Amino acid sequence: MAIQVGGRIPSATLNLVQDGVQAIDSVEFFAGRKVVLFAVPGAFTPTCSAKHLPGYIQHIDQFTAKGFAVACLSVNDAFVMSAWGKSQDTPSAIQMLADGNGEFTKALGLELDASAFGMGLRAKRFALVADDGIVTHLFVEAPGEFSVSAAESVLASL
Amino acid sequence: MAIQVGGRIPSATLNLVQDGVQAIDSVEFFAGRKVVLFAVPGAFTPTCSAKHLPGYIQHIDQFTAKGFAVACLSVNDAFVMSAWGKSQDTPSAIQMLADGNGEFTKALGLELDASAFGMGLRAKRFALVADDGIVTHLFVEAPGEFSVSAAESVLASL
Repeated sequence: MAIQVGGRIPSATLNLVQDGVQAIDSVEFFAGRKVVLFAVPGAFTPTCSAKHLPGYIQHIDQFTAKGFAVACLSVNDAFVMSAWGKSQDTPSAIQMLADGNGEFTKALGLELDASAFGMGLRAKRFALVADDGIVTHLFVEAPGEFSVSAAESVLASL
Repeated sequence: MAIQVGGRIPSATLNLVQDGVQAIDSVEFFAGRKVVLFAVPGAFTPTCSAKHLPGYIQHIDQFTAKGFAVACLSVNDAFVMSAWGKSQDTPSAIQMLADGNGEFTKALGLELDASAFGMGLRAKRFALVADDGIVTHLFVEAPGEFSVSAAESVLASL
């Protein structure tokens, strides 16, 4: 059962890639602030690298001006997330979250079986907005789609 | 039960990253030739990027002169393996094999539970040599070690 609007962000350990790597708890990460989290099926994959992350990079100032933190999630390890972030010149205002074991993604119920593509378990492409850990907006893409979770789409909803 | 010297390379699907990505069968990959396969716990990780892959890049001509093909395996997807290979200026003589589902690694019995590091299932650091699909040398590192599977060590055994 996937998380719904009104639901509470579940607890799981994630690696935050920012000035090095630190293990954090997802509940603490979302506590006391408004966060836009967008998730991609894989670092270095075409849509994620050419469109999804770049859109948030392009619009980061608008999210910040509206009072939202922005985080990017993938079921990749922290080394890969770090390399991917650097390859895209990602600003530090976008927090890179590595869910290498897929625990947080599975706790959200938003996992994707990508083993047919040689990618094992991944996250669906989605975006969610949470206020103090309560989900206020949820945008889950249909398989292969890139539309509702784009930065422009999420910005328009805020 | 891990594969042993004298054992036959098991069949599994891998993604070969070379002028694009193609799905291949491991048995066909090893058939009819001598191959040195080295495996790393993760693309973009410190030891793999600073020592293991660079050692094989440095010594590739010596492997080729002795009649061995060289391949690099990791439980990462093809997108990550491609980006990692490019970031290291890996010559095309080193064939990059993405075992994103971990199927081949598990079939070899050389998997590593790296979930404590937020990396899920990975391959142990190892090297093996096979002649027409039969393993002739096997070098599996102890956890955290980097010694017997290094290019210099494997070269000395050939």
